[in-house]
Amino acid sequence: MKIVLITLFLVALLSYTSNASSFTNDFCVANLGLSKTPSGYPCKSETIVTENDFAFSGFVAQRLKSPFNVGFKVATVNNLPGLNGLGISAARVDFGINGTVPMHIHPDATQLTIVVEGVITAGFITPTNAYVKTLKAGDVYVVPKGLLHFTINSGPRKALVYSAFSSDNPRLHILDKLLFGNNLETRTIKKTTLLDELQIKKLKAQFGGSG
Amino acid sequence: MKIVLITLFLVALLSYTSNASSFTNDFCVANLGLSKTPSGYPCKSETIVTENDFAFSGFVAQRLKSPFNVGFKVATVNNLPGLNGLGISAARVDFGINGTVPMHIHPDATQLTIVVEGVITAGFITPTNAYVKTLKAGDVYVVPKGLLHFTINSGPRKALVYSAFSSDNPRLHILDKLLFGNNLETRTIKKTTLLDELQIKKLKAQFGGSG
Amino acid sequence: MKIVLITLFLVALLSYTSNASSFTNDFCVANLGLSKTPSGYPCKSETIVTENDFAFSGFVAQRLKSPFNVGFKVATVNNLPGLNGLGISAARVDFGINGTVPMHIHPDATQLTIVVEGVITAGFITPTNAYVKTLKAGDVYVVPKGLLHFTINSGPRKALVYSAFSSDNPRLHILDKLLFGNNLETRTIKKTTLLDELQIKKLKAQFGGSG
Amino acid sequence: MKIVLITLFLVALLSYTSNASSFTNDFCVANLGLSKTPSGYPCKSETIVTENDFAFSGFVAQRLKSPFNVGFKVATVNNLPGLNGLGISAARVDFGINGTVPMHIHPDATQLTIVVEGVITAGFITPTNAYVKTLKAGDVYVVPKGLLHFTINSGPRKALVYSAFSSDNPRLHILDKLLFGNNLETRTIKKTTLLDELQIKKLKAQFGGSG
Amino acid sequence: MKIVLITLFLVALLSYTSNASSFTNDFCVANLGLSKTPSGYPCKSETIVTENDFAFSGFVAQRLKSPFNVGFKVATVNNLPGLNGLGISAARVDFGINGTVPMHIHPDATQLTIVVEGVITAGFITPTNAYVKTLKAGDVYVVPKGLLHFTINSGPRKALVYSAFSSDNPRLHILDKLLFGNNLETRTIKKTTLLDELQIKKLKAQFGGSG
Amino acid sequence: MKIVLITLFLVALLSYTSNASSFTNDFCVANLGLSKTPSGYPCKSETIVTENDFAFSGFVAQRLKSPFNVGFKVATVNNLPGLNGLGISAARVDFGINGTVPMHIHPDATQLTIVVEGVITAGFITPTNAYVKTLKAGDVYVVPKGLLHFTINSGPRKALVYSAFSSDNPRLHILDKLLFGNNLETRTIKKTTLLDELQIKKLKAQFGGSG
Repeated sequence: MKIVLITLFLVALLSYTSNASSFTNDFCVANLGLSKTPSGYPCKSETIVTENDFAFSGFVAQRLKSPFNVGFKVATVNNLPGLNGLGISAARVDFGINGTVPMHIHPDATQLTIVVEGVITAGFITPTNAYVKTLKAGDVYVVPKGLLHFTINSGPRKALVYSAFSSDNPRLHILDKLLFGNNLETRTIKKTTLLDELQIKKLKAQFGGSG
Repeated sequence: MKIVLITLFLVALLSYTSNASSFTNDFCVANLGLSKTPSGYPCKSETIVTENDFAFSGFVAQRLKSPFNVGFKVATVNNLPGLNGLGISAARVDFGINGTVPMHIHPDATQLTIVVEGVITAGFITPTNAYVKTLKAGDVYVVPKGLLHFTINSGPRKALVYSAFSSDNPRLHILDKLLFGNNLETRTIKKTTLLDELQIKKLKAQFGGSG
Repeated sequence: MKIVLITLFLVALLSYTSNASSFTNDFCVANLGLSKTPSGYPCKSETIVTENDFAFSGFVAQRLKSPFNVGFKVATVNNLPGLNGLGISAARVDFGINGTVPMHIHPDATQLTIVVEGVITAGFITPTNAYVKTLKAGDVYVVPKGLLHFTINSGPRKALVYSAFSSDNPRLHILDKLLFGNNLETRTIKKTTLLDELQIKKLKAQFGGSG
Repeated sequence: MKIVLITLFLVALLSYTSNASSFTNDFCVANLGLSKTPSGYPCKSETIVTENDFAFSGFVAQRLKSPFNVGFKVATVNNLPGLNGLGISAARVDFGINGTVPMHIHPDATQLTIVVEGVITAGFITPTNAYVKTLKAGDVYVVPKGLLHFTINSGPRKALVYSAFSSDNPRLHILDKLLFGNNLETRTIKKTTLLDELQIKKLKAQFGGSG
Repeated sequence: MKIVLITLFLVALLSYTSNASSFTNDFCVANLGLSKTPSGYPCKSETIVTENDFAFSGFVAQRLKSPFNVGFKVATVNNLPGLNGLGISAARVDFGINGTVPMHIHPDATQLTIVVEGVITAGFITPTNAYVKTLKAGDVYVVPKGLLHFTINSGPRKALVYSAFSSDNPRLHILDKLLFGNNLETRTIKKTTLLDELQIKKLKAQFGGSG
Repeated sequence: MKIVLITLFLVALLSYTSNASSFTNDFCVANLGLSKTPSGYPCKSETIVTENDFAFSGFVAQRLKSPFNVGFKVATVNNLPGLNGLGISAARVDFGINGTVPMHIHPDATQLTIVVEGVITAGFITPTNAYVKTLKAGDVYVVPKGLLHFTINSGPRKALVYSAFSSDNPRLHILDKLLFGNNLETRTIKKTTLLDELQIKKLKAQFGGSG
């Protein structure tokens, strides 16, 4: 008798909730194979989404690279498709001795950084001021969206930080790559920055610029 | 002669850039003493903002607490005023053996979590599915905005994670606190959840509910 | 002569306004057959849009269903495609005697409800407070986005309400379905809610959970 | 012994959750006495918010008024302060025989209307098309944001509708009031609409325009 | 030796920056051949984007047209695809003697206008006020989003203005076209505007309306 | 008799529209004396707003200044308070022979520029490409939000452009001012940009940097 009642209950409930079927919109996992839109990638069908779409492996110690002696790894919508449209992403940065994340900009993302190991000096600059601070393990700092900033390993040993960004696909504009890493002509750089021609050519050689 | 030219240059430059003075809007550090608005706190005058408004100390090992054997610390606009209006914040969570972050919701924030130490099992649930995964140090996972979720220390030792949220002041709604931690009447809870009265009263006693 | 002038006028006007043809963006009716994006569905071609894309029939008395003795009907982008991208939708809820909309959440929508018939008791809860109020025909109330809430027919007869939501495809998360209606394991629910195992199993049986 | 344990538990829990105190942001009830901002009113202190801030009474039959033989009542942030910042509001409109809501625009709100009683003809217009439809009780229709629209009681008896708007403070621009209800000069109206001077003066007399 | 070092440096740098390859999202040039979404057009592949996607030619003196003796040209996402998703566009308007931009609305865009030549009288109207001002070359004015407005060449010679809009695809609703340029029935217009039937028919003849 | 009817009509209408009084939200003119919020300035009382709040004078030929031989003038919320919260602003830029707007960034605004006189070469750069184009009077171009860009007068005579920005208070970050115009230490600049120390000191002398 009890079983009959429960069965009836379940049938009722299913019809009850099937009516709610238009109420499904719980996430929009990126279908990276379709064209992106200004709001993000089109969604994968929910029927093929699994827990693996929301996880990523690889925030382990990174190999340090020249010339800045840092290593980094990012988790953005491009490798963690569950982030699509959600406005957040993350990075791990390993600093060797003297390691530096050079002057750069995330044009559309605020950066929030947690210092996990070591001592770093971080700063961002506005036309009138430089906001620079030395931070140690357990400290957190923020770089407001769009500001030119840098991080230097200022301690005696290696350092490690995690950063979060207020975009699921933040842009990374390293100043040297912008100025010296593409085909922009030397005379144009000179005219618009007042840098000396020799300086420009020297850095173009370093950063692969051809102009 | 050179000095004269440079001086002229500087005078020209200052007048050049003072014209740009209406172009200043680089951040809006919270004035926590004024009434909040739907977009955040009113801004502090930039003249009294320093680098300390953008930093916070305290993401160190937290004392574990009953009944869930976890400890946590947050950095939001309330203790890191430079986050104001920027839509991001962070937390550190320490797990003891068997430590658990109980079922909860961040109604207006996506959570992105980096596992730093240990092994955890994390999951979020929708009406039709539970997305649960076991993660280890170096893994990253995301809980889309507004979903009920939990994290369990499923490894043999303590665990440590950092989380970022897509809000500068995310809300934390622990399910047990919502249901059993306020003055909502027992008969109302019973009617709207179908939980048994004894169960409700038992948990009200644990979570401080009075209704 | 007059006809000639009017004809000239019309020709001029047509060429005048055809120049404005790039100024067309009056709506974006959902093409439900294409993949959704974080901002909504791609738009149907305007040439096949008719007034029927902006209308929906069916907000009539609904059949009441067990176990909560309520009936409801929604009008969202899925059955009213003209709502696409416009951030609004609606529902009709019929309450039988003692009818209840159980504890639930709309993670990304505020709910605005108009009581049309009967007497109801509605409430939403925060960790520290329950905001509960009894309302009659002609009353309006709001449940801010993301809060756990419920509605009970507390009058002696049936009741009827209309609700609007600040999303064109609001999600409906009934707490019992989240906890007891999927494959989440009993021991995980127990650990993360402190509910008793027997209680969990009893409700899993009712709500179709398998874990 | 049990009491001691529970007491310890409660103390632990309180300290546990007090740490979460910066996680409170559940709503922003309008403080109507302070200056509005582009995102809404500043928030009232949560300590003085009650359930009454989220409710409004008055959606009862309205007195019909000349010249359009309709009566209406709105619930917006101005009389339902809990709506602040939440992007939704509502109206009740009563139509007498032949009652009409004249041509108007809500510049920043989509309108979603539920027909509760009677038969109405509703329409919105674009430069190239009029989307007009006759609707009966139980029908729902949408007017996309910013479009000129109207509603006519086209049935033999009175009618009643409820509307929701995708703004917590929608603007109402009745075309006749815009053109004929203020101090805009007759010759300016004539030049910019090509309406005849006599027509303009006749309607200015009706709608109180002075120019 | 130096060459070897630079080569090593370049190899290191390339691998360094290739790791950053998921950090690319610098613009979303419209693929006008795909279906639009509420947030704009899907993006063209970046590999085929050139500087020409960000430029447009044609803001030269426009031919004046009856009946308003103005000429205009727009640059929106439809002819300047680099604007996609960026929320801005522009127009050039040439005024002959007595030229007029008739009463119109941009439902989802604020208009910012720079007067370059001549003297104009511009105004926007609210239900209670007309904000009208005569402006000369070098003046700038703003029409807030969604307000009915007009511009008249009130000087003795031709005039020229440039306008920018806070939308990459602003809508242009000329009031006469809305009321008299489509198939909306005369009796409906009469009932919802109180305009006289003869007036309506006269303007329908002028603006091509058929109803 | 007719007068009586009209009087009755007006009385009815006034009461009709006074009911609509909560429907007023047509603009939010900045009260520049109050603290800004993340969404803009608090609004001035509408009773003291006039047409002058929406207009600005001063887009006339600007005096050219060293070292870049350009002059510019902006109209933002700071001098045109009617722009508050509307997300748009404008600038006029006059170029002398060889005049240059040096490398700069508007971190939160897209720039749309109309070339009115002369020939200019404009470009923006990404890490992998420089998008550079020579433009003449009548051309329009766009610089997507947050990209480093410049404009050079590349013609034989002076040039004039107008720009619009997708922010009512865009930031202007001239690269030389960021790097060389504040108190950032020379060794920090060196380490984070790889510029030579002599180069840095030379430009610090030019741009007023002290570090």
